[in-house]
Amino acid sequence: MNSIFSDRMNDVPQSFIREILKVAVDPSIISFAGGLPNPDLFPVDEIKTATQSVLENYGVDALQYSNTEGFAPLREFISRRYKEKQGLDIPIKNILITTGSQQGLDLLGKVIINENDDLIIEEPGYLGAIQAFSVYRARFRPVPVDESGMDCDVLKDTIKQYNPKLMYTVPSFQNPSGITYTSENRQRVADIIKGTRTFLIEDNPYGDLRFEGSPKSSFASLIPDNTILLGSFSKTIVPAFRLGWVVAPDHIMEKMVIAKQAADLHSNYFAQRVIHQYLMDFDLDDHVKNIVKLYRSQKQAMISSIQANFPDDVKYTNPEGGMFLWASLPNNCFAMDLFNEAIKEKVAFVPGDPFYVDGKKTNTFRLNYTSADEATIDEGIKRLAKVIKEFK
Amino acid sequence: MNSIFSDRMNDVPQSFIREILKVAVDPSIISFAGGLPNPDLFPVDEIKTATQSVLENYGVDALQYSNTEGFAPLREFISRRYKEKQGLDIPIKNILITTGSQQGLDLLGKVIINENDDLIIEEPGYLGAIQAFSVYRARFRPVPVDESGMDCDVLKDTIKQYNPKLMYTVPSFQNPSGITYTSENRQRVADIIKGTRTFLIEDNPYGDLRFEGSPKSSFASLIPDNTILLGSFSKTIVPAFRLGWVVAPDHIMEKMVIAKQAADLHSNYFAQRVIHQYLMDFDLDDHVKNIVKLYRSQKQAMISSIQANFPDDVKYTNPEGGMFLWASLPNNCFAMDLFNEAIKEKVAFVPGDPFYVDGKKTNTFRLNYTSADEATIDEGIKRLAKVIKEFK
Repeated sequence: MNSIFSDRMNDVPQSFIREILKVAVDPSIISFAGGLPNPDLFPVDEIKTATQSVLENYGVDALQYSNTEGFAPLREFISRRYKEKQGLDIPIKNILITTGSQQGLDLLGKVIINENDDLIIEEPGYLGAIQAFSVYRARFRPVPVDESGMDCDVLKDTIKQYNPKLMYTVPSFQNPSGITYTSENRQRVADIIKGTRTFLIEDNPYGDLRFEGSPKSSFASLIPDNTILLGSFSKTIVPAFRLGWVVAPDHIMEKMVIAKQAADLHSNYFAQRVIHQYLMDFDLDDHVKNIVKLYRSQKQAMISSIQANFPDDVKYTNPEGGMFLWASLPNNCFAMDLFNEAIKEKVAFVPGDPFYVDGKKTNTFRLNYTSADEATIDEGIKRLAKVIKEFK
Repeated sequence: MNSIFSDRMNDVPQSFIREILKVAVDPSIISFAGGLPNPDLFPVDEIKTATQSVLENYGVDALQYSNTEGFAPLREFISRRYKEKQGLDIPIKNILITTGSQQGLDLLGKVIINENDDLIIEEPGYLGAIQAFSVYRARFRPVPVDESGMDCDVLKDTIKQYNPKLMYTVPSFQNPSGITYTSENRQRVADIIKGTRTFLIEDNPYGDLRFEGSPKSSFASLIPDNTILLGSFSKTIVPAFRLGWVVAPDHIMEKMVIAKQAADLHSNYFAQRVIHQYLMDFDLDDHVKNIVKLYRSQKQAMISSIQANFPDDVKYTNPEGGMFLWASLPNNCFAMDLFNEAIKEKVAFVPGDPFYVDGKKTNTFRLNYTSADEATIDEGIKRLAKVIKEFK
């Protein structure tokens, strides 16, 4: 091959969602395709106060180069919050601030995955993780998830057959499906992983956004030696800052720091200081309560409209939190074909196809409910219901 | 091998400079080891005004997720500046905003370098580039540089023998040596590269910081089809924001955008908006003039003190800009051994060793002159001169 490009870029899927979003940019289209937090609740005034405070009190210090690991007081806040909310003991030496949790995925792929290494991914699974690990040419071993969590029979066989280094999960309010692993399912998954060499990555960007049901244990409390945690401020404070974190054992952290230094030296230090100042001067829990209240009513609006308008043979999940729900058409209906019809009726969603690694056409699709008001949600679901009825 | 880690992390050098900086943290040590811009000139008030303006006028828009390529008006500013300052026509579709120019290096390695691909690097060369390309297991082919630029005989042979995909250069005020390729040298290098498949990466973080001599042509004007440009706001505005950019041809840009999306979705969008606002409301050239004036006097202070105090057989470069100069001890004196003695006398620098890829002990070392005032520079050089005299 005489290509100028590396082989590793051959398998990386283009972001299909990117293309979808381009189609959906027409303002007359009601879009359930995005994955954006609702900007109405962004704490603009509080961020303004925090930026002023940082610049007035710390000035040049907040604008200089900094260390790769991240601002220690911010990592201390994260550590304290793990203790308070989940009873987890996470020393700050095991917390690395990353440029969004997406960078956590890139760094984990970089330091752990060799070409053709097996990696377990949920089916359907988060597209950003599929992209990140594709770069390192992981061999994906999908394990199905449903409303109770992961299929433990398939998981057991997959672990036994492949002994994978990594397993990527979003156990709470999963992207794309909105499902949450039950406590029983978590325990069963933990029992299967325990004692193997597999690291379970628990990606938890939506964990704070629970509007129903009760919180579930982190895998970090069930199988601490086998768990890597990813967290993010993008869904609870603001996405633009691109600030997330990884929690990993010492020996992995050491390699991650080296890899991060080679990747971007450190994450935006001013933004780290501003987020920290925000967390010191304002109550994150109060803010999260407002987000939860809004998303709960938006989710309920979508579920109610679906119940009233969709044909009975369209199945859907009913999330306890997060930003997405997942619908399934009858088996012979392909979501991609439905998408093309839906666009004509001015409503958009994400066909399930990019969330599977086998490249097959699917009958599933993802709906986001956090970006439109309740009336718009109802109108959009009605449009979609009409398309589905004509399409079947 | 039963390691949990990928093979690619085996060869990545730990940041030696990181370790050096830890030693040099003692406040009684005068350190020429760092690579930090002088914070006295950070435009704190202007950044404060810009953050307020962005939050007041654009509010939530500046805090939401954004596109991978970067904020278009910021890329337009960069494009206009290339035209005004260097006469280059760079369409914004060929400009990608990155999380510092360090990320530009990571993405170029990622999309271009296969394991064992040959890559030309300057000798001595920038440590951050050595780290970034080591991750992708490039085979480094060093080509020596001296005060006139690159050794073109070695370059010609290296290109002929290896036909490398990439060549990494800092042709103006190089890190670590402070040297600048002459116009004649640039033309010779360009003549050798032209018509080959090699992409010359011109990293130019210090280009605006010229305090003597006349600006030189970019390789982008000499061999546009073979040139990739890296730029940064870290040395001219503030480092903490981690904002840089890559200029590359369409087909490389397309892969870079996919790779960047998988790496961190996009760079901090709020910081992009703030830097853009700063550039709209304040005069970057006026600000750069102040930096140049300060660095000129600091460099002159260091050169004067070296002339007055160092033994005659210690050679050194006399940079026309940038932040570093490079010294060479007599051949039988190793800089690493000198470092250990110097620390005892409360003065620090970076031994040349990490800037070479062959792992040999060297007699060279790097001195930074931008982080201390003139009196401190003189005192530090006197301490170092004393150590050198006793050491030889």
